[in-house]
Amino acid sequence: MRIAEVRERAVPISSQIANAYIDFSKMTASVVAIETDVVRDGRPVTGYGFNSNGRYAQSGLLRERFIPRLLEAEPEELVDESGENLDPERVWAVLMRNEKPGGHGERSVAVGVLDMAVWDLVAKLAEVPLHRLLAERFGDGEPDPTVSVYAAGGYYHPGKDEAGLVAEFEGYLALGYTSVKMKVGGLPPADDLRRIEAALGLLDGEGARLAVDANGRFDLARAIEFGEAIEPYGLRWYEEAGDPLDYQLNAWLAESYPLCLATGENLFSMQDARNLVRFGGVRPGLDVLQMDPALSYGLTEYLRTLEAIEAEGFSRRSVVPHGGHQFGLAIAAGLGLGGNESYPGIFQPFGGFADGIAVEDGEVALPEVPGVGFEAKSDLFKVMETI
Amino acid sequence: MRIAEVRERAVPISSQIANAYIDFSKMTASVVAIETDVVRDGRPVTGYGFNSNGRYAQSGLLRERFIPRLLEAEPEELVDESGENLDPERVWAVLMRNEKPGGHGERSVAVGVLDMAVWDLVAKLAEVPLHRLLAERFGDGEPDPTVSVYAAGGYYHPGKDEAGLVAEFEGYLALGYTSVKMKVGGLPPADDLRRIEAALGLLDGEGARLAVDANGRFDLARAIEFGEAIEPYGLRWYEEAGDPLDYQLNAWLAESYPLCLATGENLFSMQDARNLVRFGGVRPGLDVLQMDPALSYGLTEYLRTLEAIEAEGFSRRSVVPHGGHQFGLAIAAGLGLGGNESYPGIFQPFGGFADGIAVEDGEVALPEVPGVGFEAKSDLFKVMETI
Repeated sequence: MRIAEVRERAVPISSQIANAYIDFSKMTASVVAIETDVVRDGRPVTGYGFNSNGRYAQSGLLRERFIPRLLEAEPEELVDESGENLDPERVWAVLMRNEKPGGHGERSVAVGVLDMAVWDLVAKLAEVPLHRLLAERFGDGEPDPTVSVYAAGGYYHPGKDEAGLVAEFEGYLALGYTSVKMKVGGLPPADDLRRIEAALGLLDGEGARLAVDANGRFDLARAIEFGEAIEPYGLRWYEEAGDPLDYQLNAWLAESYPLCLATGENLFSMQDARNLVRFGGVRPGLDVLQMDPALSYGLTEYLRTLEAIEAEGFSRRSVVPHGGHQFGLAIAAGLGLGGNESYPGIFQPFGGFADGIAVEDGEVALPEVPGVGFEAKSDLFKVMETI
Repeated sequence: MRIAEVRERAVPISSQIANAYIDFSKMTASVVAIETDVVRDGRPVTGYGFNSNGRYAQSGLLRERFIPRLLEAEPEELVDESGENLDPERVWAVLMRNEKPGGHGERSVAVGVLDMAVWDLVAKLAEVPLHRLLAERFGDGEPDPTVSVYAAGGYYHPGKDEAGLVAEFEGYLALGYTSVKMKVGGLPPADDLRRIEAALGLLDGEGARLAVDANGRFDLARAIEFGEAIEPYGLRWYEEAGDPLDYQLNAWLAESYPLCLATGENLFSMQDARNLVRFGGVRPGLDVLQMDPALSYGLTEYLRTLEAIEAEGFSRRSVVPHGGHQFGLAIAAGLGLGGNESYPGIFQPFGGFADGIAVEDGEVALPEVPGVGFEAKSDLFKVMETI
């Protein structure tokens, strides 16, 4: 088999929301299609990929460097021993040819988008759902039947008050979610605490059903102060209090805040994630790691990241990927991670899971279709087909 | 004053050389021109920037995100209190609007190219050389009259043997350099040691005049083993033995290798450089830090980086920037750094310094022209004028 064509397009995933750091009104995503010369049911087998929210489309890097490298490679450099399927590790090595080490941003997104499409293709050519293929290759053979998901929302929005926040979360509970996450750090602490208390009112006061996310906004003093203020609520986790690369801040915060801290969505390589667990004071069995495979060089690098954090004493169950996409879901089920993010209703059509599979009691099942499962999410597949 | 136009073009800086990690045959650089509405001598005052070697042109990111943000900003968002010059810190904040923290690569190059042009403009509008402006704003008022430079070369090249290496270094000595740097890690250690001994033969056996650079190629065991092999030579420094983000490796190597280690050229943000000095076992007064302002969000971020490493006990004299360009030279003289890299004859026309100012006894002086000094390097300015 060989790659016949690679197509890319940037599409808007704009939204009138904001977190404590950025607004999303100009957010875009790259969508790629890798078409092979293998024809099934009269159509070429094609893999798809996209980048999740928070980072922008990578049209420039994809067109200037990464797609040309893929197309210039000899077909035999890209395939496995059978010659009938791609070898993701070998494809990845071709993509990263003549790239220096370090500098993990943007490039990690461009490669992640292509790597997602490669894994979609690999599972489609093997005619199995990706989560089953991953469980067979890298797990105990049997994927988790469902994955724990939480509804990430609670963004700041002009004119949105506590009643609006509660109404938003009521909607998530009605969809079958049992736990939710909200943004903090974009308002003075007293205002955020009022918002937290309003949300807890809806959640029967159960702090374990509510996480908060500061998107890296706080310095050390404010991070500790906010932690002290929320500690009595017993929240599920306190996410990205400070700069994602300030491992020292995280370590000091972990000495002061005894409950779960979560971070990692802005670490885009094995090396960065390894530094977090080596130097960030992260506590195995308590804290949560949130690296997003779509933003961090794809699943091929994610496997290295999981190996590195396991070597530092962490379980895969500590990992709950950022991004709220089907790729993260398939990886979570196939590799036995601790859950997956979900953004009900936003970042569409990229966010969310297969049509007709409802969230039940905070858990979601996966579609039994070959590949990542994009064909089972009609609004997303409609965009992919036009690329 | 206001920005009238921003132009960008990718140009090749290809070269038939290779280090232990990549070959440079497809290397490119972005060149930008920021033109203002201020006219002097009948021409609009224009600032120029480019990225140094090792990372690619950033046409995509510049055109998709960063140049549009600059042009969409209100002129008053970009200027200082006088209204007659740009405020680089404010320009930087506009460029980084709606960018999430973390993920420091590619984007850091795109912003670095624009930031170089901004500082060139600021100095031109103030009608002073950049090194003098920097000494006044951030130093003791008086720039260093000359900067210590070393000749970085000794790349691998098909068919190049030890005689070729020695001939190359003889050329550098004839140009006025007193110390040189060569690549290692791309051949078996015994071969590299033969190359080192050949070079030392030319340098009267003075190890302090020779540095070696492994470009991140070694794992811990090989890094330590190579360190033990070269320790008797008493080399000037042993550069980037392992992955640039493997701080733990650097710390372990520093326990084993008692002489100078150098690293940092692939750290592209204040946060990453701070992590190196916090966790990498770097020894103040002994080791060398090599962050490159053109690749790491520009001088505006570099000032934050210098502040962060000084807070961790390091002197500015520990810093010898990567890149071999006039921007690094002006910063080194103006801020009192420890020196600057130089690549005689390669990465042209971007590498190297002003016409007519020879290297003397390993030191180079700066041209007394407004801005970074690009107008005093005719081959470079010829390219800039065509953008």
